[in-house]
Amino acid sequence: MSTTTTDFQRWASTHQQRIEAQLQTVLPSPEVAPQRLHQAMRYAVLGGGKRVRPLLAFAAGEITEADAGRVALAGAAVELIHAYSLVHDDLPCMDDDVLRRGKPTCHVEFDEATALLVGDALQSLAFQLLAEYRVTDDPSVQLEMVKLLAAAAGSRGMAGGQAIDLAAVGATLSLPELEFMHIHKTGALIRCAVLLGARSGAALAAAELGQLDRFAKCIGLAFQVVDDVLDADATTATLGKTAGKDARQNKPTYISVLSVSDARKHADELRRDALAALDGVGERALRLRQLADFIVLRKFR
Amino acid sequence: MSTTTTDFQRWASTHQQRIEAQLQTVLPSPEVAPQRLHQAMRYAVLGGGKRVRPLLAFAAGEITEADAGRVALAGAAVELIHAYSLVHDDLPCMDDDVLRRGKPTCHVEFDEATALLVGDALQSLAFQLLAEYRVTDDPSVQLEMVKLLAAAAGSRGMAGGQAIDLAAVGATLSLPELEFMHIHKTGALIRCAVLLGARSGAALAAAELGQLDRFAKCIGLAFQVVDDVLDADATTATLGKTAGKDARQNKPTYISVLSVSDARKHADELRRDALAALDGVGERALRLRQLADFIVLRKFR
Repeated sequence: MSTTTTDFQRWASTHQQRIEAQLQTVLPSPEVAPQRLHQAMRYAVLGGGKRVRPLLAFAAGEITEADAGRVALAGAAVELIHAYSLVHDDLPCMDDDVLRRGKPTCHVEFDEATALLVGDALQSLAFQLLAEYRVTDDPSVQLEMVKLLAAAAGSRGMAGGQAIDLAAVGATLSLPELEFMHIHKTGALIRCAVLLGARSGAALAAAELGQLDRFAKCIGLAFQVVDDVLDADATTATLGKTAGKDARQNKPTYISVLSVSDARKHADELRRDALAALDGVGERALRLRQLADFIVLRKFR
Repeated sequence: MSTTTTDFQRWASTHQQRIEAQLQTVLPSPEVAPQRLHQAMRYAVLGGGKRVRPLLAFAAGEITEADAGRVALAGAAVELIHAYSLVHDDLPCMDDDVLRRGKPTCHVEFDEATALLVGDALQSLAFQLLAEYRVTDDPSVQLEMVKLLAAAAGSRGMAGGQAIDLAAVGATLSLPELEFMHIHKTGALIRCAVLLGARSGAALAAAELGQLDRFAKCIGLAFQVVDDVLDADATTATLGKTAGKDARQNKPTYISVLSVSDARKHADELRRDALAALDGVGERALRLRQLADFIVLRKFR
């Protein structure tokens, strides 16, 4: 187990460095005008985050023997969308947070107007990336990848999940309602990361894409459950963002509908469902299976 | 001249209705969850605006004999980007405006968090549209269209222009500096509208695309000069948005570097430069030429 862990950690670390380098390259240089905006975009994206979504893309890409350079582009596009959503979420009119990844949030370090534009421009950059470079062989598949990312980011995906989250402040949600919210808010982009990684490589049959999608749906939910458990348990210092904030803001979390120990059990069930979805995919799904374990057990940073 | 005007106005009105119908169709229904977000997205986009960018796309599409249904999709994508930018511009941390197209701005009618998400989701929807439907024959060209729109919207296009605008508050800009700002802030998306319209149809030689781009660059600047003149002249009632605001906010405008009559002259020079760029394109550029006149003379609403 320890050898496996070390091997996975090496893989994860290599691919985290790869995505970091890719993001460094695609973000406009801080010397290019408008400099302050470009500095703020780099501040918001670089040097932080576990890059879970790009790692999922790399792991899914191994199933279709995708070129890692192509997956890095697709994974960077997903990560830019994720980064933009964090910048906008932290704004005073949303979660009004001052700390992210152990640093002042973008609007605290720069200003609100700049943070708004940072989010807007990061979203554009994600789509530019995914359209400008060859990320898969067939341009029609690439257009579908753009569509997948746009749908995952939009009002019936991540942005819609945010709206549901806003509407739920102070409300008592049932477990199914909570999951509906998370399937949108964080789940849509995680599923998209897995599908884009896979689609960078050889074509998959619809059934296999369905399996991957089921895996990603379960792992997306598990990710959120673990986040809520950590948020309830942790201190601000270990978390790198303000701890216990959702509960104080009267936001529904898994901990508001389940006990901490039941939430842990739920995360583990979701992990097992995720792994079951990969039955029959074989050795090529090794990294995806390991990622499922590590997302739920959070052994990596 | 009056017959020409009537003929152009009929053309413009037909195509305004077409783009309105297209936007109606592509915006999520207000009954689909999250309902409030979808209602706010429709509020921000529908029933207002002259649709100048889609009209430019239709007019450019006539040069390459593009199918009007395809141009309507591409034009709608551009208009969604434009609409998102207005919603975000009006937010308290940006221009803090309460009136747009004669109605309360989105964050006044709904709330700030919703308006933020409306802008975010409209941007995603624009890219979804442009990737999901067939807007030109060759998928590689379509990917290039996605890239063009993303670049026009991003930090080296419209969002970058906003950042330059923010940085310029209270500063004295020279005419070249002011034009640099506008080439980004409004010019990039106007150029994109023209190029996307043309690219929906038959392939154009690089030289012809260059002519179109030059036309669009001039007309984008002329558009802004006329806007500034109108803003200085008009009342809030005739303008449908708060008049004289830029000057009060200490924002640089053409009227801060030129007299009103010199600004009018400058707009007319730009119009003539725009028309000169179309020399040799022939009869197929009729609508583009008429649009140039009408943008500068603002005879249509």
